[in-house]
Amino acid sequence: MRVHLITGGAGFVGVNLARKLLARNEVVIAFDDLSLGHREFLKSYDNVAQFEFHLVDCADRKTFLDMAQSVHTRRPITDIWHLAANSDIPAGVADPTVDMRRTFMTTFEALSVMRTLGITRLHFASSSAIYGDVPDRAIAENYGPLEPISNYGAMKLASEAQIRAAVESFLQRADIFRFPNVVGVPATHGVIVDLVRKARATPSGFDVLGDGTQQKVYLHADDLVDAMLFISERASGRYNVFNIGPDDEGVTVANIAEAVRDRVSPHATIRYGTESKGWIGDIPRFRYAIDQLAALGWAPKMGSAGAIRCAVEEIADQEAAR
Amino acid sequence: MRVHLITGGAGFVGVNLARKLLARNEVVIAFDDLSLGHREFLKSYDNVAQFEFHLVDCADRKTFLDMAQSVHTRRPITDIWHLAANSDIPAGVADPTVDMRRTFMTTFEALSVMRTLGITRLHFASSSAIYGDVPDRAIAENYGPLEPISNYGAMKLASEAQIRAAVESFLQRADIFRFPNVVGVPATHGVIVDLVRKARATPSGFDVLGDGTQQKVYLHADDLVDAMLFISERASGRYNVFNIGPDDEGVTVANIAEAVRDRVSPHATIRYGTESKGWIGDIPRFRYAIDQLAALGWAPKMGSAGAIRCAVEEIADQEAAR
Repeated sequence: MRVHLITGGAGFVGVNLARKLLARNEVVIAFDDLSLGHREFLKSYDNVAQFEFHLVDCADRKTFLDMAQSVHTRRPITDIWHLAANSDIPAGVADPTVDMRRTFMTTFEALSVMRTLGITRLHFASSSAIYGDVPDRAIAENYGPLEPISNYGAMKLASEAQIRAAVESFLQRADIFRFPNVVGVPATHGVIVDLVRKARATPSGFDVLGDGTQQKVYLHADDLVDAMLFISERASGRYNVFNIGPDDEGVTVANIAEAVRDRVSPHATIRYGTESKGWIGDIPRFRYAIDQLAALGWAPKMGSAGAIRCAVEEIADQEAAR
Repeated sequence: MRVHLITGGAGFVGVNLARKLLARNEVVIAFDDLSLGHREFLKSYDNVAQFEFHLVDCADRKTFLDMAQSVHTRRPITDIWHLAANSDIPAGVADPTVDMRRTFMTTFEALSVMRTLGITRLHFASSSAIYGDVPDRAIAENYGPLEPISNYGAMKLASEAQIRAAVESFLQRADIFRFPNVVGVPATHGVIVDLVRKARATPSGFDVLGDGTQQKVYLHADDLVDAMLFISERASGRYNVFNIGPDDEGVTVANIAEAVRDRVSPHATIRYGTESKGWIGDIPRFRYAIDQLAALGWAPKMGSAGAIRCAVEEIADQEAAR
């Protein structure tokens, strides 16, 4: 029986992962400090015997180790899905301590817990942000140089580095998932949420950060979690690094703004800015090579455009129900 | 007038850098916690007006910022040479906290000090260890994937990542020096010191870690510091990453052991181990591509074999004088 500890278990990806693991009747232990996650995202599992939630700040060594140890003696943890991280890129630009503590130190402490308790399988949520601004080609996993332009990306790369060294030393297995932009529900932030909220607040028109030409690939959370589980089952190395994304050129911010307008406020005027970047650390254009994941046998059900259409529906419904 | 703050200023490279900067009549402020550095390495500069030493743990936010601010109001700091780091790779394998605190957190705090005080030029001592174990080719700066196999290498890569993001945000200029193995004096650790001490302790014979076939490139500290200063003057980018090393295939541990024997105890028997690696995190074979540095116009005065011969002389003298 697999027992999965998900750090950041009350966050956007954590909740989607918990749902799929519980649907397989596996045990899910969710740790979250609720700084970005929400306890109510998990409330439908509160009566599920295979599920536990614990309020844990995974950057706090003693709290994390004590709670993990307490769980581990009852239900020996086989896998850690380390998703706890700062997900707010601009917040990390304003204060580097945010990414250092929430992204880097949580990884450091997760590895420390694994070493202490003898937990051997780690699955880590990394990011396309580790590559930095590479506008002119599809980026494969072995791309170099790695030049993250945000503290968010820097601390994800720093986390990968720690994990790689741990595989050399005590960790039996690590999967590194380099996420693209991910959309879906429960959504707490991101371009669709921002635009849906603006369009609902002022149906006559809304502003878009940047000139709308920024083009990125998007993956739906359902596809993302499918890929994570697929890689964890099928990849054969001790250290597996995978870009996860659709095999397309992505969609522009203007495409997203138009989809939001059509769904939420059909008569709204969309007002664009003049900059090609939205904020410091934003990557205006970006494309993944996902040949390695395709070779393993996985393909997403939705491309970027489909993921955006589906997520705009979901998020419009979510916001209407708030 | 340039005012240089050297973190790790009482360490092996720091002392050599301080000497060259003082010889140019520039101001040198050395910070060191003396955990690995030695105050006496700098004692010949104690009466030099352009020199200051301060006992500072650069991982301690308040101590570091307070002392840097105090200096900066008297002598506005123009450059930080961030050399403070754990340099003991096996220590970091045994306890990941060592590299996390001494290498990663000192970089985090150095950036924080620069941001707070408005210091804009950073020079950083990175390492070939960020590349991991790449035995089959000469490694250029844009090599990928980056898979450090020691916490030492992981925290150097993690530091580079932070610095790259800071260049996007507030730092005007950063030079990343990827050091090879560096030899010279004042030597505190490393293969030559180990072997010289063993050969002096038991002149009849001494053991070598590993089977002696491990082959690496070595640079002499004089050449290293020359290259650092050359890059800082000649490179034109805002973010400059340079491998620093000789353009050769390196020398083996057996070559080094023989040089030590010949110099220290000519009748000693050298006893080799059976493993091709010396310890976890050790890279058995390694070669740099240094085309970028050559194109900038720099070449070392000594290759690997010359650097080893010179350093064996210097270290044998150093140990005889202890």
